[in-house]
Amino acid sequence: MADFLIIGADAAGLSAAVQLKRRLPGTEIKVINKGRIISYGACGIPYVISGDISGSQKLVHFTPESFEKERGVPVHILQEAVDVFPQEHTVEIRDLNTGETYREAYGKLLIGTGARPVRLPFIDYALEGVFNLHTIEDLDRVLLFLEEEKPGEAAIIGAGNVGLELAEALSHKGIRVRIFDIAPEPAFQWPPLIRRAVAGKIKEKGIDFLGGTAIRSLERRNGRLSLGTDDAAAYEADVVFSVVGTVPATEFCRDKLNAKKNGALFADRRGQTCDPDIYAAGDCASVYHRLLDRNVYFPLGSTANKMGRIAGINMAGGDILFPGIVGTQILKFFELSLAKTGLSQEEAEKEGFRARRFSAARPDKAAYFPGAAPAKVEVVCEEDSGVLLGAAAVSETNAAQFIDAAAVAVFAGMGIEDLAWFDSAYAPPFAPVWNALVSAALKSSKA
Amino acid sequence: MADFLIIGADAAGLSAAVQLKRRLPGTEIKVINKGRIISYGACGIPYVISGDISGSQKLVHFTPESFEKERGVPVHILQEAVDVFPQEHTVEIRDLNTGETYREAYGKLLIGTGARPVRLPFIDYALEGVFNLHTIEDLDRVLLFLEEEKPGEAAIIGAGNVGLELAEALSHKGIRVRIFDIAPEPAFQWPPLIRRAVAGKIKEKGIDFLGGTAIRSLERRNGRLSLGTDDAAAYEADVVFSVVGTVPATEFCRDKLNAKKNGALFADRRGQTCDPDIYAAGDCASVYHRLLDRNVYFPLGSTANKMGRIAGINMAGGDILFPGIVGTQILKFFELSLAKTGLSQEEAEKEGFRARRFSAARPDKAAYFPGAAPAKVEVVCEEDSGVLLGAAAVSETNAAQFIDAAAVAVFAGMGIEDLAWFDSAYAPPFAPVWNALVSAALKSSKA
Repeated sequence: MADFLIIGADAAGLSAAVQLKRRLPGTEIKVINKGRIISYGACGIPYVISGDISGSQKLVHFTPESFEKERGVPVHILQEAVDVFPQEHTVEIRDLNTGETYREAYGKLLIGTGARPVRLPFIDYALEGVFNLHTIEDLDRVLLFLEEEKPGEAAIIGAGNVGLELAEALSHKGIRVRIFDIAPEPAFQWPPLIRRAVAGKIKEKGIDFLGGTAIRSLERRNGRLSLGTDDAAAYEADVVFSVVGTVPATEFCRDKLNAKKNGALFADRRGQTCDPDIYAAGDCASVYHRLLDRNVYFPLGSTANKMGRIAGINMAGGDILFPGIVGTQILKFFELSLAKTGLSQEEAEKEGFRARRFSAARPDKAAYFPGAAPAKVEVVCEEDSGVLLGAAAVSETNAAQFIDAAAVAVFAGMGIEDLAWFDSAYAPPFAPVWNALVSAALKSSKA
Repeated sequence: MADFLIIGADAAGLSAAVQLKRRLPGTEIKVINKGRIISYGACGIPYVISGDISGSQKLVHFTPESFEKERGVPVHILQEAVDVFPQEHTVEIRDLNTGETYREAYGKLLIGTGARPVRLPFIDYALEGVFNLHTIEDLDRVLLFLEEEKPGEAAIIGAGNVGLELAEALSHKGIRVRIFDIAPEPAFQWPPLIRRAVAGKIKEKGIDFLGGTAIRSLERRNGRLSLGTDDAAAYEADVVFSVVGTVPATEFCRDKLNAKKNGALFADRRGQTCDPDIYAAGDCASVYHRLLDRNVYFPLGSTANKMGRIAGINMAGGDILFPGIVGTQILKFFELSLAKTGLSQEEAEKEGFRARRFSAARPDKAAYFPGAAPAKVEVVCEEDSGVLLGAAAVSETNAAQFIDAAAVAVFAGMGIEDLAWFDSAYAPPFAPVWNALVSAALKSSKA
């Protein structure tokens, strides 16, 4: 019997463990993890492939040993949760060393099992040169393959964030890249401003993008991989990456807890599921969206860390309500920094807002300063109230400069007329007098 | 008789002129300017000296001719306002071509005469190699001197922003730099976090800083310049810069209008002085500070542009209230980006707030990402309410990433506990999960 049992030793689970240990140093906390490797920065994977980061081990923050040594909490690896019994307060666990199962009792449970990559039904992921890309083990297999096989041509299925980061990484290695997506444009979950910038950069970099194209078959033929599409065309590649999103890794418990259709566990602003002794955090759970005032599935490493911390504080007897995400995201794609917060105009209208959009392009430094490049920002506000609903930015420096300010404004419910005049930092090397965010907001002015 | 007379053709005056022309295209707008050069980016001067920007003309945005052509408003140069008669609605102007004075009647007047550098009484600014640094003419004289005389050693009097930027510029040119200031530390108007960072960088770069040292004499001796201090020490230099701040250039009108002790004209949130037909904007005027709820003197190019625009809108019959500055500033000093918004703890306490300060150092990117460097942020909040009062940041990338977000938060009156959880952008190349701003705010948590 563990006072606290934590399933999953990554961002969410370990953040919770640290809080529990800090607040209740004498209590028994047990962390189990299905895989061998814990505490890794999945977001860094593309940068190991590109060679910017030297080796997959750089992404690993703690080993089970170092975590126990530094944080005082043991982590049991190769222990897979296979069922949960909320009434009895037990979890059924398979020891992957022996294949045997056992039951572990808990006082309070945290589920932080994360997500796993979607697998396309017609792909045999055991084929040589065919990869998902989610774990350090996946990454090591890819690195070995790239090293040994030196593929000349890559196919990427999925033009979302990971697909784009991977396309950049492979291009840097001199590999010709072709991206397939069923959506007509790349980066389809982003607003048009960003989709256009991504499409332009794809073209500039000589990457092929085949939009509106569903892959229907994948086989090995004459030493290469052959991809068949729904319009009967065939494409060849030396290596294929399937990166079409993730789903919550909650099969073992989703029928017992209140899960979304995709399997995401409901967790409230305290991190609690529908069972008061079971918490859930990270990519296996939904999260409270402040603007929409309801839970959404928005898996992101930063949110997993935050919700793990929130859950840990509350499990330990603290009392904290997560104020909510507002949907902030940022993506690097070659020279571009692409970011968004809140709702796009499309999303706002889908949510029933009457929304207006204003956009502006301005240099990212004083126009006369060397290296000044255009930054583009669009802001979205509610038509009647003028309350800011969202913003998107494309910059050649760090778009967080605009988007973090906009995220605070969305978070605070600020009106766009106030955003237009906020006291933004100005000095020639860092920003122009009227930066792109302020300029976009100013266009809303009725004065 | 001009419907609208504008004195000063820089940030404030020309911003107002553009608004007036746009809103009242048929009206007569007259702009006069004492100097020959209008519309220049004074903030870029140090970067011309360093050679980053090639030539002083790069800083000039409009000539009188190009402004009239592009914006439709004539600018009359070498016309100096020497008196103002609010009752009669006239300004007395000296034509510097002829030396003769004349009166110009106005319907509404905007004073945007900016500031001029403080001149120390014991310095003969006509001495060869002794410079103020404010105008393009000053800059051209400096460039010529540096080119022709190739000074080996420079003395800078004043370790404020301009003094520091200049020290960097001269160092880049291989000139040995010594900075004098009566304050014990450099960057004395900044909070301790930033003062320490600046002091460290000064040392690292081999610049001499003599704090607590007042210069009392300056003379030419044996082909060099000799500076005497109040403790009777003497220092030699080949070139001397006096950059000890600026004062409002309002001698011609300050006794007729409601001026602060330093000569700054009072302008309300509409840009209006105590006379309803006279507006003032930019470095010649005070400006509304949102947090302090009163006017302050805080000369800055961005504020001059904003208040010029606000004044222009209102002069044209529009109706807009400036929501106020919150004291945002940013400074580049070698590799450092130094920024601040709101109040430091010292300032907050001086204003009667019970203030608390929290600080954190975090990498500016994911810790494993190449080039990650520490960023430091401190936040200040009101003790009881937790309302954010200010923040300061030191970063090797762009500190605006933190400070613009903090400026929005201060502007919006956000609580520090909300700032701790705001949805900041996260991706390895641009920010860590817990960035330095969020981390500093989190330290305030009572949960």
